[in-house]
Amino acid sequence: MEKTKVGIIGLGTVGAGVARLLLDHGDRTARHAGRVLWLEKAVVRDLKKARDCELPSGILTDNVDDVINNPDIEVVAQLIGGIEPARTIMLKLLKAGKDVVTANKALLAEHGAEIFDAARELGRSVAFEASVAGGIPIIANIGQCLSANQVTSLHGILNGTSNFILSKMQDGDDYNTAVAEAQRLGYAEADPTMDVDGTDAAQKLSILAHLAFGARAQWKDIPRTGIDKLQVADVEYASEMGYKIKLLAVADLVDDGLELHVSPTLLKAGSPMAEVNGPFNAVRVDADAVGRLMFYGPGAGQMPTASAVVADMIDTAVGRTKLTFQTLELWSNRPARVSPADYAGARGRFYLRVNVDDHPGVLAQITKALGESGISIASVLQHESTSPGEPVALVIMTHETTEAAAAKACQTIASLESVRTAPVRMWLRD
Amino acid sequence: MEKTKVGIIGLGTVGAGVARLLLDHGDRTARHAGRVLWLEKAVVRDLKKARDCELPSGILTDNVDDVINNPDIEVVAQLIGGIEPARTIMLKLLKAGKDVVTANKALLAEHGAEIFDAARELGRSVAFEASVAGGIPIIANIGQCLSANQVTSLHGILNGTSNFILSKMQDGDDYNTAVAEAQRLGYAEADPTMDVDGTDAAQKLSILAHLAFGARAQWKDIPRTGIDKLQVADVEYASEMGYKIKLLAVADLVDDGLELHVSPTLLKAGSPMAEVNGPFNAVRVDADAVGRLMFYGPGAGQMPTASAVVADMIDTAVGRTKLTFQTLELWSNRPARVSPADYAGARGRFYLRVNVDDHPGVLAQITKALGESGISIASVLQHESTSPGEPVALVIMTHETTEAAAAKACQTIASLESVRTAPVRMWLRD
Repeated sequence: MEKTKVGIIGLGTVGAGVARLLLDHGDRTARHAGRVLWLEKAVVRDLKKARDCELPSGILTDNVDDVINNPDIEVVAQLIGGIEPARTIMLKLLKAGKDVVTANKALLAEHGAEIFDAARELGRSVAFEASVAGGIPIIANIGQCLSANQVTSLHGILNGTSNFILSKMQDGDDYNTAVAEAQRLGYAEADPTMDVDGTDAAQKLSILAHLAFGARAQWKDIPRTGIDKLQVADVEYASEMGYKIKLLAVADLVDDGLELHVSPTLLKAGSPMAEVNGPFNAVRVDADAVGRLMFYGPGAGQMPTASAVVADMIDTAVGRTKLTFQTLELWSNRPARVSPADYAGARGRFYLRVNVDDHPGVLAQITKALGESGISIASVLQHESTSPGEPVALVIMTHETTEAAAAKACQTIASLESVRTAPVRMWLRD
Repeated sequence: MEKTKVGIIGLGTVGAGVARLLLDHGDRTARHAGRVLWLEKAVVRDLKKARDCELPSGILTDNVDDVINNPDIEVVAQLIGGIEPARTIMLKLLKAGKDVVTANKALLAEHGAEIFDAARELGRSVAFEASVAGGIPIIANIGQCLSANQVTSLHGILNGTSNFILSKMQDGDDYNTAVAEAQRLGYAEADPTMDVDGTDAAQKLSILAHLAFGARAQWKDIPRTGIDKLQVADVEYASEMGYKIKLLAVADLVDDGLELHVSPTLLKAGSPMAEVNGPFNAVRVDADAVGRLMFYGPGAGQMPTASAVVADMIDTAVGRTKLTFQTLELWSNRPARVSPADYAGARGRFYLRVNVDDHPGVLAQITKALGESGISIASVLQHESTSPGEPVALVIMTHETTEAAAAKACQTIASLESVRTAPVRMWLRD
């Protein structure tokens, strides 16, 4: 049987999973690829560190040049996180004639143009299924299976850490307890900032927006709010009104372009996206021919991510990736097919929570502020005060309005004398 | 830009949808394929019949040889249903050097060996994404995206007609009213037998079992029960106990092989598969590396099916299908990787409904019959009789047992003097 020699750079959690699939299940990859994927070299920083996989002797090296300069290695899984040295190694691999597979979404979101241009110029390919939504094959589904469609809307729960934390808060934990639990179970890093502040989801969304819409969105330009300021009170009020809060990455094609944002969002309980719990991811895709599809699965973790990486390695070894790669619109120099829509004009419903002094006339002031912004109220919830003198929470669900109108109304409300803190505002979707 | 000439055989609902995507959205297919898919000929039986698409002159023909003998046509969407003349045309197309795309699952389930052998021998490919689960790209996901995995379980709602009927029954319609409504909306054929008796789901399951497990299952050997004998009473009792009834196609890898069956099944309300309503399909896949994935989408319909057909045409024109096709284990002459497990040994829980005379001692007789088969009872529901003298329904949910034990117990129960009709028995899953 033919043999394709492959290398792995970085034997962390995912890298070790990839090595195990290649070494322990060679029959499987051979069957699907019609050839053996032969692990020739695995590069690590520290040769002495204990690892989560057993390697035959001669494979492990701490010199990345053993892969870059080995002309027999055709496909490389580049599994180093962060920007450098990942970027430099990536470009060297491409220049050395390797096809590359990666799970590094931050690198693609930051330096996609440079990397994809280099790959195209050198006639190489970059496969990146594992960079978005972990084990869910969303890249293949959008880039290939939906090619007869114009995607019109893409809503994703793309950050498993945030979703785990939100699920715990749904069960009654406060934010800090939920974060600690996520860290204990390995769902959150020691510093979870990039996950909980919406950065990770925005980076993934920018990749999907390139792929599905031919957009040229930079992740830094995507308006994003994380879950790091979310209070358990809001989770409880949402729940009381029949909603669950999810960190939703949204790409909607509207009249004036592509609306992109990452926001904590109230979703109607019982709707498929609202019921995605724990560290799972889900992507809902609306497209003009097929209608609505939904994909659900593990958003991270060693073997789900390794599953995506090895599928990419097989596709690359077989030659499929090269055929797909040439027509993908990822950071291509073709003109963008869609421009970003102005976030201020984004239409939708909102959840507002205002902490107010329990005085007569406060509700009237607030509804007046909303009315002046042209916002009409769909429902209001205010419980009786349990501790006199303390502010009470006023929860309002609006009818459809714009982001700008909602922001303006909240500004006015925040300036009212009876209002203690800036209103909490979130998108609301049925 | 390069051009690949394509043909369509059969301009029914799906064929017209395919023609529209090719003609009205040529920019889209060209962008994804890197070449134009040029519709050269479309074959119909009756040139005078009104159609759901407008074709430029010179394309329409009633002579299938205009496609078969046209050496310029490289890819053909063969969209005639049924076995003949579809089978003969398919073989002629392959012999004439065409790559074929089809949505005809009955043909593949019945003559897959002959067709795939012919394609392999002639160096051609057959793409069939549209044959299972309509717009859900389940073939690509299993055949390609999960290639680093051993699939261990596959549960599917694969027949949209049955699912629509069950959803209507869930809303209170009786079976015949629900069928009439399905026919009125175009979700059911004038003769819906193949859909409601489990045949269609078993044919799709046999294709998925080949693909995911390397099984050699013939659809006729798959134990199957349809929804055509289901009574609204059972839907109501299920609902009362917190379950919904779905027609579930099951492929589970167990110790002694691959368990395959199609059965009306009670699924816990709120679980993702239980909440798939209307004409939608869903497939839940468990695989050893990735864990659990779920795919949801439209199971039939003109444009969803056309979406799958055109994606296959693009993949075929680009050359991707050929690369995948060679390693798919579909009716290949490689030995089966798994043998069918004995259905009698299939383990699980059951729902039983027994119509009994409202006499003292009846429950004791029935529980004795269950006990003698080694079946223990998880819950019982019996409402007070509203019309004295009439039989009452006794509803029992069992703990885990085997298909054979449940069948034997039901046989014993049916022979009891106080039992009027054979018990209704369905699988029960959380």
